[in-house]
Amino acid sequence: MSQSEALRVVRPNPWIGAAVYTGLLVAGIGIFLLICRAGSGLTVPAASDTTAAASGAIRHEPVNIVLHVLGTLAAVIFLGSLLGKVCRRLGQPPVIGEVLAGIMLGPSLLGAISPEAMHVLIPSATTDPKGQVTSALKAVSQIGVVLYMFLVGLELNAARLRKQAHAAVAVSHASIVVPFVLGSALALGLYKTLAPAGTTFLSFALFMGVAMSITAFPVLARILTDRRMSRTELGVVALSCAAADDVTAWCLLALIVGVAQSKLSNVAAITAGAAAFIAVMFLIVRPLVTRLSARFDATTAPLPPMVISGTFLAVLLAAMTTEAIGIHALFGAFLCGAIVPHDGRIAREFTAKLKDPVTVLLLPAFFAYTGMRTQIGLVSSGEDWLWCAAIVVVATVGKFGGTLGAARLTGQSWRDAAALGALMNTRGLMELIVLNIGLDLGVISPTLFAMMVLMALITTAMTSPIVSLLVPPAPQEEPAS
Amino acid sequence: MSQSEALRVVRPNPWIGAAVYTGLLVAGIGIFLLICRAGSGLTVPAASDTTAAASGAIRHEPVNIVLHVLGTLAAVIFLGSLLGKVCRRLGQPPVIGEVLAGIMLGPSLLGAISPEAMHVLIPSATTDPKGQVTSALKAVSQIGVVLYMFLVGLELNAARLRKQAHAAVAVSHASIVVPFVLGSALALGLYKTLAPAGTTFLSFALFMGVAMSITAFPVLARILTDRRMSRTELGVVALSCAAADDVTAWCLLALIVGVAQSKLSNVAAITAGAAAFIAVMFLIVRPLVTRLSARFDATTAPLPPMVISGTFLAVLLAAMTTEAIGIHALFGAFLCGAIVPHDGRIAREFTAKLKDPVTVLLLPAFFAYTGMRTQIGLVSSGEDWLWCAAIVVVATVGKFGGTLGAARLTGQSWRDAAALGALMNTRGLMELIVLNIGLDLGVISPTLFAMMVLMALITTAMTSPIVSLLVPPAPQEEPAS
Repeated sequence: MSQSEALRVVRPNPWIGAAVYTGLLVAGIGIFLLICRAGSGLTVPAASDTTAAASGAIRHEPVNIVLHVLGTLAAVIFLGSLLGKVCRRLGQPPVIGEVLAGIMLGPSLLGAISPEAMHVLIPSATTDPKGQVTSALKAVSQIGVVLYMFLVGLELNAARLRKQAHAAVAVSHASIVVPFVLGSALALGLYKTLAPAGTTFLSFALFMGVAMSITAFPVLARILTDRRMSRTELGVVALSCAAADDVTAWCLLALIVGVAQSKLSNVAAITAGAAAFIAVMFLIVRPLVTRLSARFDATTAPLPPMVISGTFLAVLLAAMTTEAIGIHALFGAFLCGAIVPHDGRIAREFTAKLKDPVTVLLLPAFFAYTGMRTQIGLVSSGEDWLWCAAIVVVATVGKFGGTLGAARLTGQSWRDAAALGALMNTRGLMELIVLNIGLDLGVISPTLFAMMVLMALITTAMTSPIVSLLVPPAPQEEPAS
Repeated sequence: MSQSEALRVVRPNPWIGAAVYTGLLVAGIGIFLLICRAGSGLTVPAASDTTAAASGAIRHEPVNIVLHVLGTLAAVIFLGSLLGKVCRRLGQPPVIGEVLAGIMLGPSLLGAISPEAMHVLIPSATTDPKGQVTSALKAVSQIGVVLYMFLVGLELNAARLRKQAHAAVAVSHASIVVPFVLGSALALGLYKTLAPAGTTFLSFALFMGVAMSITAFPVLARILTDRRMSRTELGVVALSCAAADDVTAWCLLALIVGVAQSKLSNVAAITAGAAAFIAVMFLIVRPLVTRLSARFDATTAPLPPMVISGTFLAVLLAAMTTEAIGIHALFGAFLCGAIVPHDGRIAREFTAKLKDPVTVLLLPAFFAYTGMRTQIGLVSSGEDWLWCAAIVVVATVGKFGGTLGAARLTGQSWRDAAALGALMNTRGLMELIVLNIGLDLGVISPTLFAMMVLMALITTAMTSPIVSLLVPPAPQEEPAS
């Protein structure tokens, strides 16, 4: 008798089956009721378990973290993909729509119209006194952003970048120094009215300078890909500059973290730590990864489980290391992606695996988290709006002007220098990350946070129209020459 | 002049470049110092911003949620993939090693040896008074488990299951009723010493009954796949029973949630809600999804972004709906996967996209979260260990015996009925999920939680050796006949 014959289910007489089943059920319920009757006299001594009180304490309607986090994610994904589609129609990067979706569902719009509706997503302090939902959303958003930066690193063509390094570094530094100086000058005017109590001018000015100098590497990459410019010379220079900007900006941000926490002695340690980390990644890890990646390029067999868990582990460890050093988890994740050969199988498979779950599912948590903290309503008086306008103007003049000047000096034409300036003025996601850090540190007030978020959105929205005017759209992705 | 020529970077004289760059940097630093000097006399009025105090309050070394969550994930992934590999060598499902990794890094082992080392991963209540890291880890773990259940649903062959429905339902119900009754009988003995204060006997007995009746559908699926049995008749019956078990168990669990929160009136609402949800999913959503999926089967073009975000959105909404109804988010996610045609492109692409990020990166958060809450040390006295042994025996006798009996009655051979009983005795992941819910509700004490976790591990570890004895390993995946 073969196995499959033996296993063929012999249909018994349906009446017998039903009778057995009903009998079983009735007997089960009957026995259970008898057990309950027997147990009804039992009582639990009050101190039967030392930790019982602790677990008993949360019985009174604890906030449902899972429901709130899933609901917030769903709302932001829904509204974000709608607004993202609208943005795409208007020739804008979809990220603007996604950020707007987060802001609209937060206190700035939904919360202003109906706080109850907003509390359905993010519970109020009364129902969630420990801020558990906020912590949860923050953790999910950070994991999303860490994986996103890893993807951005994976897509980076390091070999191509190195060729452009000279021009990129000069342009990049100019595009940081000029907005940094202008931003810290603006801090003179903003400090009295918009700095939070207890912040020193030094840390406030440093933060405003860095916040003005940010370029959104990921958004820039997305704009270039959308416009099919990511492999043109202009695109590569812009990406290289933005990458160099990122490294510089994170280093400056590390300085601020040190200053804001009044631990200037830490700054030397942070700088040394960052240098050591970069050296280890490039001199030790990179050759190993290159060799490992090459081994899988020749075969089509699935990557072994150890390589998959090893890669995720490497991203987590790199992110943790930079977070522990003080230059934020994102930098480590990005660098971890950047050292993987971008055309090898590891890079291709991880990009294919991670792209949708990260950008569609996890990144919206970041947009929601940022939107939750953005209170546009705080920007109320005419004076506030004037300061907001001043911030936008200073940010644009500094970044656009600084890049334009430096690009001209390194030999670019006026048109290309201007296009590069416009591209570097994109602040999107990165600016939001930096602003969240500033708010966490208590270096900027919620009002200033809202103004800076508006600045990030406006400068990001400017980029596409200006680039369209300056660079005719490429018919298709230009192959590398 | 072509675009790429115009954009070619003209290398300027390096001396000029260096001079310009140095000048820029020196000028930038000089101006910044002047600005700081100008700003040194400025002070912020104490009440410059109404919410400043709130953001200022978290300046004193807030707990770094990101670092702790990333660190915990990294540790569990590392140890879990090592122990998982060991388990695989021993012919055991790797999930046992992953669960053990979580327990070893929690209070049961690492915390017992060195609480400081454990607090590096999960901070103590002193450094994290609001339990933010725990909330964060819980949210990440729940998102992981929700996506995992969606994947399990995607892999389910609904058409094949329906053919087996008759036998499956009878066996499945017997395999729930018998351990349920035995579990609630055991509750009579356990109630006095191991129920937390304030728990009624009814909810305690109900919970113990359900906790004994669980079969880990995902672990079962993994064991069958590892043993190349998932398409054999025995495998399909086991999977069908486990799936039917899940539905029943979740419904019973919903009853417990109602009873434990003293809202028996809710039970009717929960049952009605669950029925309505299942009806909507099968009668309305399923035909739409089948048509949509078929449309993409003919083409190889990438799935449109709206389908990708729509699918994630559907999973989140289904999970939220069942969570809001009261039958846990997992059930909705599982059903959402189950209604997608399992051989269509949507199922295949989402499985390919999600499998590694979910099982390798997010699910370890669940193992860590569970391990964190498991305190094996609470099971200390000889009496405790006897109760623990009794729990294992009752769980096994109930599940194995109940399944065996029902399978014989529906016409299986002794050997196959026994193999089915052994398979259904696998509790792994699902049991842990149910136990976590019980601990959240305050229905079981941490001591009992630890005992039940041990029971889950022991019954899961039993399965493979018993099945090996009864069913000779198949040479390869048997094609569907």
